[in-house]
Amino acid sequence: MDKHCRIGKSSLRFPDGPRIIAHSSLAGKKEGEGPLGPLFDRIYEDATLGEDSWEKAESTLQQEAAKLALKKAGLSSEQIRYLFGGDLLGQIIATSFGVEELNIPVFGLYGACSVCGEALSLAAMTVAAGYAERAMAVTSSHFASAEKQFRFPLGYGNQRPLSATWTVTGAGAFIVAPKGGAVKISGITTGKVVDFGVKDSMNMGACMAPAACDTICQHLKDFGRQPKDYDRIFTGDLGLVGQKILIKLLRDEGIDLASVHDDCGIEMFDSDTQDTHAGGSGAGCSAAVLSALILPKLQRGDWKRVLFVPTGALLSTVSFNEGQSVPGIAHGLVLEHCEEET
Amino acid sequence: MDKHCRIGKSSLRFPDGPRIIAHSSLAGKKEGEGPLGPLFDRIYEDATLGEDSWEKAESTLQQEAAKLALKKAGLSSEQIRYLFGGDLLGQIIATSFGVEELNIPVFGLYGACSVCGEALSLAAMTVAAGYAERAMAVTSSHFASAEKQFRFPLGYGNQRPLSATWTVTGAGAFIVAPKGGAVKISGITTGKVVDFGVKDSMNMGACMAPAACDTICQHLKDFGRQPKDYDRIFTGDLGLVGQKILIKLLRDEGIDLASVHDDCGIEMFDSDTQDTHAGGSGAGCSAAVLSALILPKLQRGDWKRVLFVPTGALLSTVSFNEGQSVPGIAHGLVLEHCEEET
Repeated sequence: MDKHCRIGKSSLRFPDGPRIIAHSSLAGKKEGEGPLGPLFDRIYEDATLGEDSWEKAESTLQQEAAKLALKKAGLSSEQIRYLFGGDLLGQIIATSFGVEELNIPVFGLYGACSVCGEALSLAAMTVAAGYAERAMAVTSSHFASAEKQFRFPLGYGNQRPLSATWTVTGAGAFIVAPKGGAVKISGITTGKVVDFGVKDSMNMGACMAPAACDTICQHLKDFGRQPKDYDRIFTGDLGLVGQKILIKLLRDEGIDLASVHDDCGIEMFDSDTQDTHAGGSGAGCSAAVLSALILPKLQRGDWKRVLFVPTGALLSTVSFNEGQSVPGIAHGLVLEHCEEET
Repeated sequence: MDKHCRIGKSSLRFPDGPRIIAHSSLAGKKEGEGPLGPLFDRIYEDATLGEDSWEKAESTLQQEAAKLALKKAGLSSEQIRYLFGGDLLGQIIATSFGVEELNIPVFGLYGACSVCGEALSLAAMTVAAGYAERAMAVTSSHFASAEKQFRFPLGYGNQRPLSATWTVTGAGAFIVAPKGGAVKISGITTGKVVDFGVKDSMNMGACMAPAACDTICQHLKDFGRQPKDYDRIFTGDLGLVGQKILIKLLRDEGIDLASVHDDCGIEMFDSDTQDTHAGGSGAGCSAAVLSALILPKLQRGDWKRVLFVPTGALLSTVSFNEGQSVPGIAHGLVLEHCEEET
């Protein structure tokens, strides 16, 4: 890989972009009842997935996503050289216990809900450099394990403000390889920690919008592009509140995103009927929407080029309870339709 | 980078290995009173570092480590293209808040105490592929934030079994670049999640030893080497209990490690006088020992080749309290003395 893949300040270009050769999307019951329901590979009516804890349920979700992607690609786990995985839980236990059985060398990641972008970026970097014949990215979230981790016991039945998002029960797995598949990752823009001092953990859209703005601005600058060079620009899980802030922030920078912007969290649920307030969120939200909605459209050539920007809110209950702000981070990937070569 | 850098099942070889051009080691008071005290760049007598919470203290530690490495290299943070960082806390808040001010595109990592190896592996991969003119790896741990996160309130004064380790208050930062500096990273071996079903979180050496064994075996096989090809093989924080298990496990595989094995956790404290039982541990332990002890010896040529294998125990209080086992992971790096070129 020559140095010319470096572009601008924070981006890499992969002219001969690594391909996403297989992918899977798993979702919970509520997600299955949403507008994307018919598009998911698998919907679990039972949120426990037969396990005796929410965390084990999430691990199983992640493992099943990985296995399904392998099955679709006709590969065994031994044929994957490196796995990049993450989730929202403390010490990423959903991933550790989820990928254990796969027996693949693993890089554990934490980037809150942006981790799907982080994992795919590193998988693309690894494959483009020739470090792996195949790499896998897998991320998950689970409504119940996340509520338990970050908010209130489910039985408490707390009121949720309208700015709150609903953590998606879902997972996505992606196999990246040098050839095969009709979608290539032609570039990435890696995000910084962006902190506007917002302290409201029930309004994560507001916490993350500045990071999404920073990464999108940097991306367009690094690549010398404008929003119209993309069929769609998808953020991860800003939701309805964060979307408004993002569009406003970008307008202040002279960038009009409104006509091409979508958000995985907004796509996931019907906010009018599903009581999900600002939208869906979680490390499994952007992953499942990427696999179920975005990649098929790129594969068919309905869209030629999409900027996919998962967003994350960097907080723990400890940092939040100690009065710290909630900084955000966002990682961008350029996904392009291409001729399938084998 | 041609594909021949792939070697064996889990390893990469960097023939023209990226260099560690600058590094820093910060430590707390107790660590400063140990055998390595005179070697640390900086020792903090005040464990709070002037902050009002242990977590903020750890963030400051990580930020100071990064700044000191930059200062030693004569670089500004803008000259670092990517940062790979991690710590032990849920949602890696020490890293998120620690690196925020540096304004560098960041990949957040979680690999428990192995994260120094994970961060350096990804930094080396990134630089060797030409993705960055410079990358930084930074990791930390703090005794008080870790006790609060994983065990008991400090004021409770619980008894600790002799198999327990003492979480190191410390941090290390490393700047990796294509040229400059007398130590190169000539290869890596990435670990898998290895689970022997051990459930004793007060005996993390026993939890991690099987992972260290797995990574060291795989490494020697991938590279076609024997322990005698290394001046020293350093594990991260197995401590006195884990060391015995590792040597026994490797002997069962026909590998005699005893004569070349060291452990960063054992080196960190004087277990006879410092009441640290099995030794030191934590994401800052292997990082600080690497910077203070191992790299200077390699720089001077006292050692020509070292295998550095940080080890991590993958648990959270949630997984532990739900009766899950404590799997381990270990990431190996080959560090070699080389002629300094500029």
